[in-house]
Formats: sequence, structure tokens, C-alpha cells
Amino acid sequence: MTDVVVIGSGVTGLSAALYAARYELSVLIIGDMLGGATSTAWTVENYPGFEAIDGYDLVVKMKEQVEKLGVALSTDKIVEINKNPNDTFTIITETSEEIESKTIILAVGAARKKLGLPKEDQFSMGKGVNYCTTCDGPLYKGKKIAVVGGGDSAVKGMNLAAQYADKIYSIVRGDAYKPEPINLVRLQKFIDNERVEPIFNATVLELLGEERLTGIKLSNGREIEIDGLFVEIGAIPEVVLAQKLGVELDQYGYIQVNNMMETNIAGVYSGGDATNFFGHFKQIVTGCAMGSVAATSAFKHITKA
Amino acid sequence: MTDVVVIGSGVTGLSAALYAARYELSVLIIGDMLGGATSTAWTVENYPGFEAIDGYDLVVKMKEQVEKLGVALSTDKIVEINKNPNDTFTIITETSEEIESKTIILAVGAARKKLGLPKEDQFSMGKGVNYCTTCDGPLYKGKKIAVVGGGDSAVKGMNLAAQYADKIYSIVRGDAYKPEPINLVRLQKFIDNERVEPIFNATVLELLGEERLTGIKLSNGREIEIDGLFVEIGAIPEVVLAQKLGVELDQYGYIQVNNMMETNIAGVYSGGDATNFFGHFKQIVTGCAMGSVAATSAFKHITKA
Repeated sequence: MTDVVVIGSGVTGLSAALYAARYELSVLIIGDMLGGATSTAWTVENYPGFEAIDGYDLVVKMKEQVEKLGVALSTDKIVEINKNPNDTFTIITETSEEIESKTIILAVGAARKKLGLPKEDQFSMGKGVNYCTTCDGPLYKGKKIAVVGGGDSAVKGMNLAAQYADKIYSIVRGDAYKPEPINLVRLQKFIDNERVEPIFNATVLELLGEERLTGIKLSNGREIEIDGLFVEIGAIPEVVLAQKLGVELDQYGYIQVNNMMETNIAGVYSGGDATNFFGHFKQIVTGCAMGSVAATSAFKHITKA
Repeated sequence: MTDVVVIGSGVTGLSAALYAARYELSVLIIGDMLGGATSTAWTVENYPGFEAIDGYDLVVKMKEQVEKLGVALSTDKIVEINKNPNDTFTIITETSEEIESKTIILAVGAARKKLGLPKEDQFSMGKGVNYCTTCDGPLYKGKKIAVVGGGDSAVKGMNLAAQYADKIYSIVRGDAYKPEPINLVRLQKFIDNERVEPIFNATVLELLGEERLTGIKLSNGREIEIDGLFVEIGAIPEVVLAQKLGVELDQYGYIQVNNMMETNIAGVYSGGDATNFFGHFKQIVTGCAMGSVAATSAFKHITKA
């Protein structure tokens, strides 16, 4: 019987595991994407204590920190979580493993939103459609790309990609960018030197191309030839497992937690991007804090403290 | 007119300043104890990303991080904060400086609780009474000391001091320690080798000595000769400035905040140990997260976003 199974190996899960292990609990992390969103974050400059660090490097530091405390990491996929009559949980994985645990911490994060257009899935298999500009932007050196979205991850992604791509068409549904101001200051330089061309009040209507993406058709009638498209229009929380287990969601579809990261089910906790606890504001440091709180609540549940 | 005045230079304040500066706001930190509680924390092993780091070293990293962004730090003391008719604030310092600010972030932390005994203040002026075992424990090399308290900071402090002192009398009001389990495991070794002697169900009734502390008298009748006493019985939030300003406190006397770290006064935010947001659980990572959220709320207030 494991004390705590942490589902998700992003920073929230790693922080939860760190705290749980220090509480002398047995901890297993199950997650197939080490670092989650952070691992794709390019340079992180807003995590207190590190002036600038690659997102993936920060994740590796956290991973090593928990491994030194004896935490095991599994990359198995979870098929189902069942609550047992004795208030423990059974986790069933894709490899048919059954893991019994006293508590569960759902640090499952959120997935990138798609445009929902024909051929999108087909083209996203290495054929021109991407969902992480900071990850894959540098692959388009000397090429023409379009970035859809006007939020912080879109702008931050363009600031990186503009160092590689010849030209970036920036497609924004509204009439303004909404990033962290410091990132907008940086983007403005690329707009000034015409590396980035903002196209406001526009959406993508159609993905052009047969075998792979060759262009896009916009709602303003314009057709643009591009080599790659980056979709940066937000995220949706990964709540399928939580829903099956009976965990309540909030009005926006995120896992509902209280101040101590408790869900409606005793023994089940959450935190990070899968919740909407600090609203739209989803950061590495807030995920880590929520993970530490979730672990503390799991510890109290197990020890009846 | 400053955009954000952060009051308190602990990790909550530094994190708030980091985020506010990245929002391109003008930021001034006013605090006379750089690092707050963290600077006295000896080795920190539970801040994600650092396997082990001296508390003060972590604080210096955060300080340098915000200074690079142009944040100014003042060690002036604040006498009063007044709300102006135009919804800005005027901060009056001991040196009679008057600072106008659009918003205030109260990252004021908490102060150590005292025993409330005669001679306590007199003896705490370098004459045997101390409030931070991890800070001053190493000064008692080869001496006999007593530590009052059974919580995590008491136990962590004893684990450090036991490497220096000849003997530690551990005075606990209840019948058990309540630290993080990993710290109790460490303490047990010092109990086993009799370096630490637990005395449960006891309180300190009297501080003995004329010019300086020479011993203590306990509620169980016992008198013990010691060279130093460490009082580790908790903290009380620094809310005097907040109260004068009209900020609401919760039932425990902490600053009342909602999920976005907003107080009852528009433009005034809080976070960290001065609040009871995550209950008893007060950590570096939770303070940093709350600071980042407070800065975000200040940014939204200023830009009406």
C-alpha cells in the first residue's frame, strides 16, 4: 500500500512529492510528461531564486531533488482510478498494473487548446501544425510561420521564434495583445523591424495544403503561405480521470479545490494547472505551492493529524 | 507616484516585487529585515529546485534577482500608512519621508512569540535568552542550553544546536513533538545518545539569574542550570500597520485575504506569514506564490485589467 500516488510529473506533482517524502510517506509519481508545461517554457525568469533558467533544467533539478528522497517515478499511463470500500484507492495502468494507495494527488495539468479545424490533427503529426512555439519555434529557421493567439505564451513564443524565423504572421482574434508587459516590450522590437506582422481581429478559417500545411486562410479573406503554424490559444484542464472518480469540477471545468487543496473526495487532492485556484494566473511558483499544500493535506489525512 | 510599495523584504515581498517589476510597474520594497524568517532558516531543503541551500543565500539570490529588474530596497521603518481621498496611499517613514503609492502589498510576516516572563526582555539583549535556535544555537558550543517548544522550528533548531551544545534540555508543554517527521527522525538520534533530554508536560515558570540567565525553573518543580534558553513557541503576525489602515483581520489575528490576496481595502494586498491563507502551513514556496498573486492583483488594479 502506497501512502501517496501523485498523478502528473509537472512542477506541482514534483513539489507535492518533495513535501510528501519529507513527511516520511511512501510516494509514487505517475506521469508521462516530465515537467509538464514547465518543460516547454524556454527561459524561466520569474521563479524566485533563479534569475534565468531553462524550464526543463529547473524540472530536472526538482526531479533529482525528489529522487534523492526515494520517490519513484513511473511513466505508465493511468486507465482508471477506483475508490475502494475501505477508503483507499486502486489505480489501474495501461500495463494492467494495479496500485493501491491511501491518497491521490491529481497534479494532471492542462492540455493545449486546438483550433478544431479539418486536417489539424493530421498536420500536427510533424506536418506543420504545432502547439508550443517556445519548443518548436527554433525548428523553423529561415522559414515563414504564423502564430495564433495574443496571450503571454503566444507573445513569449514569438519573441523566441523571431530569432529564427524569417517572418512571423501574428494572428490575434481581438484588437490587442495581452501578455506580461515585459514580453510585449520585447515583441515590439520585432514588430518595429517587421520580423513580426500583427494581424488583429482575425481568426484562422482553413488549413491549406495536401500532404502537409502550406498556408492558412483567415477570416478577413487573406490567404498566407507559411511553412508552420503555432496554435497558442490556451489550455483545457486534464480532468477525465478526476471526473470518472467523481471529483467535482468548477464552472470552468477545472478541478474544484479549497484552500487546503482538498477535493470533494476525502483522500483526493489537486493543485496546479488542473485547478483554477488562483484564477487565470498559473505559474511555476503557484503550482509548487499548491503541490506542497496538497501533500500536507494528504499527510494529515493519513496520520489523522 | 510609485506603482507598488511592498512592505516587508522576506521571500513573499521579494517574490511580489519580482512579479510587479516584470509587469513593468515601479516598485519600492521597504523592509528592515532582509529575508525575514527565511534568513534565519539554516539549511532549506524543501524549496523546489534547490536540494539544499542556506536560507540567507536563497534570500540573497531573490534580492539580486529583483535588483536586476530595477527594484529599490529601503530599510527605513514605516510609521504610518494613510489612504488618500484619490484612493492612493501615503507612507510615512521614521526619517519623515513621505512616499505616495498606487498600491500597497503587506508582506510583513510574523514575529516570534515570547514567554512573557519577568527579565525576558532584559536577558534577550545578548544575555542568554534567544528566539532562533538555528541562528544562535551554534554560539553555544560546549554549553548547556534549553529549547522551549515542540513544533518544527524547535526540533529543527535542536538538530542543529545538538551539533554544538554539550546538552540540550527540551521543554515541551504537551506530551509529544509535532515537527515534520523527517526532522523527528533526526532528533531521535540525539535523544538516543542523550545529547537531547526531552522534558514533556512542562513549562518555564521563571528565568533565574541576576545580570544574565543562569537557569530556569519549570512547572514540574525542577530547576535546571543552563547557559542559554531558546524560545520556539510560534509567531504572531505583524499587523499593527494593517490595523491602523483599516485592514480586516481574521479570527486568529492574521490579515484576511481572498484567493487573489486582496484585503478589504482596494489597492491593498497581502500574503505570506502575515496571513493565515494556508492555515498553519507557512513555507517559503507558499509565501513566494502568495507574493506573485498579490503583485498580479496590484497590476490588475493599476491597469484596470
